[in-house]
Amino acid sequence: MADHLLDDSLVHAFWDRDHPARLTIDSGDTVTFVCKDATDGQFTPASDASVYARYDRSRAHALTGPVAVVGAEPGDTLEVEILAFEHRGWGWTGFTPGGIGLLADEFPAPYLQHWELDGDVCRFRGSDEVAVPFEPFCGVMGVAPAEPGRLTTSPPRANAGNIDIRGLRAGATAFFPVLAPGALFSTGDCHAAQGDGEVCGTGIEAPMTVTLRFRLRKDLRVDELRFLTPSPLTRADSRGYMATTGHGPDLYANARTAVRSMVDWLQADHGLSREKAYVLCSVAADLKISEVVDAPNWIVSCYLPRSVLRR
Amino acid sequence: MADHLLDDSLVHAFWDRDHPARLTIDSGDTVTFVCKDATDGQFTPASDASVYARYDRSRAHALTGPVAVVGAEPGDTLEVEILAFEHRGWGWTGFTPGGIGLLADEFPAPYLQHWELDGDVCRFRGSDEVAVPFEPFCGVMGVAPAEPGRLTTSPPRANAGNIDIRGLRAGATAFFPVLAPGALFSTGDCHAAQGDGEVCGTGIEAPMTVTLRFRLRKDLRVDELRFLTPSPLTRADSRGYMATTGHGPDLYANARTAVRSMVDWLQADHGLSREKAYVLCSVAADLKISEVVDAPNWIVSCYLPRSVLRR
Repeated sequence: MADHLLDDSLVHAFWDRDHPARLTIDSGDTVTFVCKDATDGQFTPASDASVYARYDRSRAHALTGPVAVVGAEPGDTLEVEILAFEHRGWGWTGFTPGGIGLLADEFPAPYLQHWELDGDVCRFRGSDEVAVPFEPFCGVMGVAPAEPGRLTTSPPRANAGNIDIRGLRAGATAFFPVLAPGALFSTGDCHAAQGDGEVCGTGIEAPMTVTLRFRLRKDLRVDELRFLTPSPLTRADSRGYMATTGHGPDLYANARTAVRSMVDWLQADHGLSREKAYVLCSVAADLKISEVVDAPNWIVSCYLPRSVLRR
Repeated sequence: MADHLLDDSLVHAFWDRDHPARLTIDSGDTVTFVCKDATDGQFTPASDASVYARYDRSRAHALTGPVAVVGAEPGDTLEVEILAFEHRGWGWTGFTPGGIGLLADEFPAPYLQHWELDGDVCRFRGSDEVAVPFEPFCGVMGVAPAEPGRLTTSPPRANAGNIDIRGLRAGATAFFPVLAPGALFSTGDCHAAQGDGEVCGTGIEAPMTVTLRFRLRKDLRVDELRFLTPSPLTRADSRGYMATTGHGPDLYANARTAVRSMVDWLQADHGLSREKAYVLCSVAADLKISEVVDAPNWIVSCYLPRSVLRR
């Protein structure tokens, strides 16, 4: 039951089952990971939106690891208990044309929003327009893939990876399929807050320190990531929700409709700029599949907790 | 500010802007709708799964209405405040091969689950395996469509209709686009509980009495249904969640993966039959789009509140 520390002096921005472990632990051990932001520190508190023009995407996601677990073999399950997160007072959310946001084609200029992380609250830097609870998680948590070679970290895969699941916060326990000997777990891409969907393509991206406890489960087999997460799902659930909807035969298109309507509503009724409204949706609004059975049209709803708004 | 009562002696199972209003009200009035179950009473407490072989689908959804609002014109907004629901002690959830469930191809036999609705709790009839909070809403709420003719109520449309949004419960306020003179609002398909997704195709279907207050909004225009809904989102948020995930390029396929994993988990670890597990997902598990930006793979998660399980 040892406690280990893994600093951020060496990161990797790929998945590779042959990349050597930086640390080997026993089942039951705890590891504290010091994590850079996803860009490997290319985005800083001094950046403006012009950083996108210089940004080397091959350095993302900068991951801390891998950690090998003694005795782990393909077919086992790696249980990861998520214990604690520590921020460093700053984070950012941004998007750029041609980038990955759900409405990337509707925002023609790059945009960078800085955040102040003050204790348990995240605010736009220099503004009191919104107050989003600090509800951190690791955007990327994964094990080495089954297949050899270097794989990009962008999409989530069978090894989990860039899963961006806000439920994987302190108090949660996640179960990963082991796909390579030693499991070879890495993490990073910490988010101070993010809504279900991560609709502009980023959460509140932040360098952070993360503590996880690992257990090797020979008695359990999972085909795909599953997890347990505690109540309440969010501290923002205190003043109700604004919700918009999109109907139609394609869930992705419906999500776009619902988010566009929410951006419109925030702009018209709450005076946020269109860019800030989109950013707020990404860090605080949740996409829900309200129904997926009333053929041929499904409904996606976008719920924004009203407690994050000043007015 | 009159109070009206609309009984269930006359229902309609279609949308038609030329179908005559049963009641005409002023903005500010309240209407209590007595609603049959969605099948127009074809499913009863005495039914077994053989009811599916005799079931006349053209009688669904049996809707109470329409209600005309004086002065409503296309381009206006109909604000509907959702005040109260009253059940009659019974409901059902079911599915049939060739039907509308997300996993309809994986369940070869028709299945009908009766529920006892006891105050604020819903239980499988004659069993204490699960306890789901009574959190009712109208599966169908809609206005007359813009286009003439008779339209099926199955899919949600621009007029809203079969939206199956669990957030539209007591305390919520919904905003519908008015598409035809008078608005011509109807409702029905009441659900005693339903998770986001309604994955087996039905919630806890129940005859119910519903009270709504209507306001005509000339000052507001909405292109698609939106709503405000109160906190907390569910009373089931007390003992944390089990969650499963599906990753891949198609949100619909990911939803199937996540629900299938949840059914597996409930069967293996909680001893539910496969059919009861699927039913429980439909009435209590929520489908969330965890991320929809990490191309080419998105993540859908299925969250089941652990408080609904006996063990």
